[in-house]
Amino acid sequence: MPSTTETTATTPATGAAESAGPAVHVLLPWAGLDVRHGPWPANVRVHIWDGHTPVDELPAETRESAELWVMPYAVPGAERLLPELTSVRAVQSLSAGVEKLLPLMPETACLYNGRGLHDAGTAEHALGLILAAQRELPRWAEDQRAGRWEPHFTRSLAGSRVAVVGYGSIGQALERRLLACEAEVVRVARRARPEEDVHPVTRLRELLPEVDIAVLVLPETPATAGLFGKDELAALPDGALVVNVGRGVTLQTGPLLEEVRAGRLRAALDVTDPEPLPGDHPLRQQSGVLITPHVAGGSGLFRPRAERLIVDQVRRYASGEPLANACPRA
Amino acid sequence: MPSTTETTATTPATGAAESAGPAVHVLLPWAGLDVRHGPWPANVRVHIWDGHTPVDELPAETRESAELWVMPYAVPGAERLLPELTSVRAVQSLSAGVEKLLPLMPETACLYNGRGLHDAGTAEHALGLILAAQRELPRWAEDQRAGRWEPHFTRSLAGSRVAVVGYGSIGQALERRLLACEAEVVRVARRARPEEDVHPVTRLRELLPEVDIAVLVLPETPATAGLFGKDELAALPDGALVVNVGRGVTLQTGPLLEEVRAGRLRAALDVTDPEPLPGDHPLRQQSGVLITPHVAGGSGLFRPRAERLIVDQVRRYASGEPLANACPRA
Ligand SMILES: NC(=O)c1ccc[n+]([C@@H]2O[C@H](COP(=O)([O-])OP(=O)(O)OC[C@H]3O[C@@H](n4cnc5c(N)ncnc54)[C@H](OP(=O)(O)O)[C@@H]3O)[C@@H](O)[C@H]2O)c1
Ligand SMILES: NC(=O)c1ccc[n+]([C@@H]2O[C@H](COP(=O)([O-])OP(=O)(O)OC[C@H]3O[C@@H](n4cnc5c(N)ncnc54)[C@H](OP(=O)(O)O)[C@@H]3O)[C@@H](O)[C@H]2O)c1
Repeated sequence: MPSTTETTATTPATGAAESAGPAVHVLLPWAGLDVRHGPWPANVRVHIWDGHTPVDELPAETRESAELWVMPYAVPGAERLLPELTSVRAVQSLSAGVEKLLPLMPETACLYNGRGLHDAGTAEHALGLILAAQRELPRWAEDQRAGRWEPHFTRSLAGSRVAVVGYGSIGQALERRLLACEAEVVRVARRARPEEDVHPVTRLRELLPEVDIAVLVLPETPATAGLFGKDELAALPDGALVVNVGRGVTLQTGPLLEEVRAGRLRAALDVTDPEPLPGDHPLRQQSGVLITPHVAGGSGLFRPRAERLIVDQVRRYASGEPLANACPRA
Repeated sequence: MPSTTETTATTPATGAAESAGPAVHVLLPWAGLDVRHGPWPANVRVHIWDGHTPVDELPAETRESAELWVMPYAVPGAERLLPELTSVRAVQSLSAGVEKLLPLMPETACLYNGRGLHDAGTAEHALGLILAAQRELPRWAEDQRAGRWEPHFTRSLAGSRVAVVGYGSIGQALERRLLACEAEVVRVARRARPEEDVHPVTRLRELLPEVDIAVLVLPETPATAGLFGKDELAALPDGALVVNVGRGVTLQTGPLLEEVRAGRLRAALDVTDPEPLPGDHPLRQQSGVLITPHVAGGSGLFRPRAERLIVDQVRRYASGEPLANACPRA
């Protein structure tokens, strides 16, 4: 990984650059993809920016020529480069949630997201949170250190009914895991899809009294902000588990805190509101609450899958094909 | 649940007891199964013993007439009743592992185990341990309490190769979950079953260098005691995870402790040797080790599934059909 800005130009393998048409400049977060995935198309010129060096250290040629920009992943503020990229036509984010980027996009460029890259990682993390909560793993870990050996029966995932609120790419990956665990799944999305047994979110409150576990896998949009609040929480039966692996703001922290403090509900959260969760936030010490620091998408799976997507998108761009994962303006 | 011994005789619904043949006496750990699952066959007489009251408080009639005994589950010492049951023909344990009971069985009685009752519960607990270890849940729980928010990338289960050592009833239930999590499974059992891609345990050491995770789901037998020792551990690659949800003695504690102390391997154990694990045992404070107190089989799933099995076995016995889950003498 380059720690400073680096500009790489691939050498056209057979001097075919001319015949392949004018050079296409792409700006990537990682070098060496051609080493691992085979050479770039002959008309591609690769530039590298890892997001950590000052924008003005990036050569003017890079800033003025890059047409496809693959943004550094999970580097806060990387979007500051966007106004400098005067030729940019395509911006590839490696995140699934791009709600903060869409409004920054120039009229002349399209945004593409990392849909699919995080499915397996995020779904398995959600499953891990669910199993940890149902089978009381944090409790046993405490007993382990405290020298106790006091088994008791716990809840299970098998035989539970789980609402997947946000039945999209990740929600569907989670469902496959839940079904293998002998749980029943209730699918909820924006709009009903009767042929797939997907319920519209307008029916959410009626469905909740019958579920043991509600998992939120929602993007952050004006419609999802605060979507799961006091009334939804109240609709859940005693002892139910609320899981959030989508975006923190979709679940109202205040009402949730009240329910878990009363011992009526349990929670397992990978995303929070506010996020990061302050060190002295009362959720942290609350029993029945398990928190991970927005790491559901962040596993060893990500890098190889992200590289594969980048290589495919660059090849598509270079040959004039439409890119995958377009995010239309709302 | 009766706290003292209780003898229940079902009233023959239509005075059909005579026509249904001689009365069959069964001794069960729980009352009320007829309330929840419908009436007993007319020839069945039900007695109850929960395992916690002295054997000599059980009426002599019960001890002398019971032909089918369903043992109280997870009540240490319940087997002390066995020599008192002078008419017993069938003993139903609700455990999957009955290695300690087999040698106690009188010549004239057969033993039946709880095969299948624990599959979903034990498999999902194993999956929970694997995900907790791969996704570092104990670490995040510590950070939660300590006020930290310091995300980093973790290992994943998806894309991992997992050896299931003991590809029996529970091992197969675990496999279904692992495949849904996009892991690859290597099946190991006593004997090769080439048509099912099951490897014989004699090839175990050759297979281990290629796996990321080894899960032991073995019964306790002379052949499995100490089966996974120094050489098997040494054959695993750096960073591999060892999981045990079968029986503690199948994994050698000393060599395992050395490997986790060196930081070379990680472990997640629901069963240990010795068990219970002493309060001051070094495994308890070892980083990279997660321990639960033999609770894999003990979830809310157990009771309804066990009741179903009891009801079915009693009906089979009363009608002279062979019972399910026979455990032949070795
Ligand atoms: N914790 C992490 O590390 C992590 C990692 C990756 C992603 N995420 C988050 O997870 C979110 C989901 O990702 P994805 O790839 O599954 O997205 P996706 O495929 O676009 O699916 C989103 C789902 O949410 C539903 N939805 C949207 N607005 C809704 C509303 N107002 N009410 C009810 N349902 C609504 C959609 O319904 P329709 O099907 O009807 O459109 C769709 O089913 C991302 O946006 C991201 O914020 C978090
Ligand atoms: N932690 C808990 O709470 C919990 C709960 C339930 C059960 N258990 C334990 O889990 C064990 C397995 O249960 P199960 O229902 O899956 O039993 P099972 O269906 O009888 O399967 C046992 C498996 O172990 C294999 N095996 C036996 N001896 C072996 C040896 N010497 N070398 C290699 N493999 C050997 C068998 O091989 P073959 O297929 O070739 O015969 C079979 O695949 C039980 O015996 C019990 O001790 C623990």
